[in-house]
Amino acid sequence: MKKESTSSMVTVHEVARVAGVSAATVSRFLNGTARVSVEKRQAIESVIDKLNYKPNVLAQNLKTGSSRTIGVLTQSLMSGYFGDALAGVDDALQGTGYAPLIVSGHWHPDEEAERIDLLIARRIDGLVILSGKLKDAQILKLAHRVPIVAFGRELNGPRAYGFSLDNYQGACLAVEHLILQGHRNIAFIAGPSDHLDALARLAGYRDTLAKHRIKEKQQLVVSGDFQESGGLLAVERLLESGQRFSAIFCANDLTAYGARLALYRRGIRVPEDISVVGFDDLHSSMYTTPPLTTVRQPLFDVGQCLGRAIVKMIGNEPIDMEAPRLNLVVRESVRRIT
Amino acid sequence: MKKESTSSMVTVHEVARVAGVSAATVSRFLNGTARVSVEKRQAIESVIDKLNYKPNVLAQNLKTGSSRTIGVLTQSLMSGYFGDALAGVDDALQGTGYAPLIVSGHWHPDEEAERIDLLIARRIDGLVILSGKLKDAQILKLAHRVPIVAFGRELNGPRAYGFSLDNYQGACLAVEHLILQGHRNIAFIAGPSDHLDALARLAGYRDTLAKHRIKEKQQLVVSGDFQESGGLLAVERLLESGQRFSAIFCANDLTAYGARLALYRRGIRVPEDISVVGFDDLHSSMYTTPPLTTVRQPLFDVGQCLGRAIVKMIGNEPIDMEAPRLNLVVRESVRRIT
Repeated sequence: MKKESTSSMVTVHEVARVAGVSAATVSRFLNGTARVSVEKRQAIESVIDKLNYKPNVLAQNLKTGSSRTIGVLTQSLMSGYFGDALAGVDDALQGTGYAPLIVSGHWHPDEEAERIDLLIARRIDGLVILSGKLKDAQILKLAHRVPIVAFGRELNGPRAYGFSLDNYQGACLAVEHLILQGHRNIAFIAGPSDHLDALARLAGYRDTLAKHRIKEKQQLVVSGDFQESGGLLAVERLLESGQRFSAIFCANDLTAYGARLALYRRGIRVPEDISVVGFDDLHSSMYTTPPLTTVRQPLFDVGQCLGRAIVKMIGNEPIDMEAPRLNLVVRESVRRIT
Repeated sequence: MKKESTSSMVTVHEVARVAGVSAATVSRFLNGTARVSVEKRQAIESVIDKLNYKPNVLAQNLKTGSSRTIGVLTQSLMSGYFGDALAGVDDALQGTGYAPLIVSGHWHPDEEAERIDLLIARRIDGLVILSGKLKDAQILKLAHRVPIVAFGRELNGPRAYGFSLDNYQGACLAVEHLILQGHRNIAFIAGPSDHLDALARLAGYRDTLAKHRIKEKQQLVVSGDFQESGGLLAVERLLESGQRFSAIFCANDLTAYGARLALYRRGIRVPEDISVVGFDDLHSSMYTTPPLTTVRQPLFDVGQCLGRAIVKMIGNEPIDMEAPRLNLVVRESVRRIT
């Protein structure tokens, strides 16, 4: 208690003097704007503890106008998909002096707007938005208040930049692969109909069939929800329809996991009886049985691009980068038929 | 540009007047300390945009001494295990007026300490620590600077509270189950030897065998690394050892996924030839083929407990809670042998 009462009188300079380092080093330590050696850090920490000094970055921020913080809006804290992107942002910010402040909007535009307001109220220097359901116009409006880099939409303004991956092209790669392996009756388990990426994948499926003059069969396109349970139910419906098919293209990997389990339950082998292709290349798709052939979305790379771009934007540097490309990862879930 | 220059003159009261709401409502909106109706929020947002008002929670925080922010230290942004716990913390903080600020320590004590310093410098009101490699003494020292609730260690001070799950008991449940199903030759793929949870699970395996007077065979205990690749390599070693075994208990689910793939590659069926049990119950374990019997760690519940506890601690309320319990989830990867 006695210790508490002295805290307000301690200054950065006093901490520096007792720790035997410069005041600039203490500032760097407090702001995290540059690396401080382990020895100096330990010396500073021990003095801070001894003097019960309360570093006040907020007060410093009032002067500089900077919080050295990048807000990151994700849509799910539980998802491996968003987790990879977050890890990429985190990685790109390491050593820049900016720390990510992560919040989740749960795919709900009102919640997303609310969480972004919270972030802006905490004086973030920049904002990274991962997907979500806000309209482009809302984001451009928000950009008056904070520089924004967004994933999943095309924006190109001085304070709002965005890019997306070519989901259409990714779906074409998957369906081309199946056709090259001799498949003609290819089912598709779609994603949510209000999700742009899902619609682009459906369009890629349709156009690739058309390109190869394969007539699309309505009953072979069934809806899913980007979750395992949707994939499982979709396969039940496909099998009940009585339509013949030798391959299933799933709108994402989670859907493929559910589809795989539904086939397993019926004793239908993958790939001997039915081939399966996914979309995303989640980490665990390397370890499914069989390992899943899928379209790889390089989400960690995406996160890194976003992290680098927001730092450049804050520094008024031009953002000249190429969006990472999708590619097909061929594993063992597709069989060649003749 | 002209717009920018006016921002410093705008006050909360002016925003309130133009938006036709009370100044208290604008404050609630800015701080996120309570729900504001969608209509009022939209009115306030539109005025903020029109007047280019820069809300300054930091300045307000200097007065109240509170940032309404809870720092959360995780160890991996990519992991489903930590993702579930983060989602639980996020869920518990919803509506409390506190927003989580998430950083990752990557299982490295120096990095953990550095990230916590960053958080404290941003004036968090409380800190939630998920596992990690800091020593208890370090955490108790940090608690002089900020109230702390930690997962994965037992602490019980006024400003540092921690709990862990009973990993030993969880391992006993798994091995008891295998023995009850008739298994006697049970292999164990261990976790990292410097990880307390991994050691507790190994001890549970050993003690349960001893309790049932089953002699432990040294060659049936092989090391893993809590990752799929470690599980895959461990099964190769088990098979090469020539030792007979009818079941494998894996120190976590990722290890079980790798083990499953190694068995699949050799044409060994699960559970017909070899039974497999995991530990964690990651979401995807419900959808492996076959679905995995595993010890469930209720990580979302853990996160909720942590979130509620830190809010109580900040409010000087007593923390009277019970740690969530582990239980066995029986699915389809274990066969009864006679």
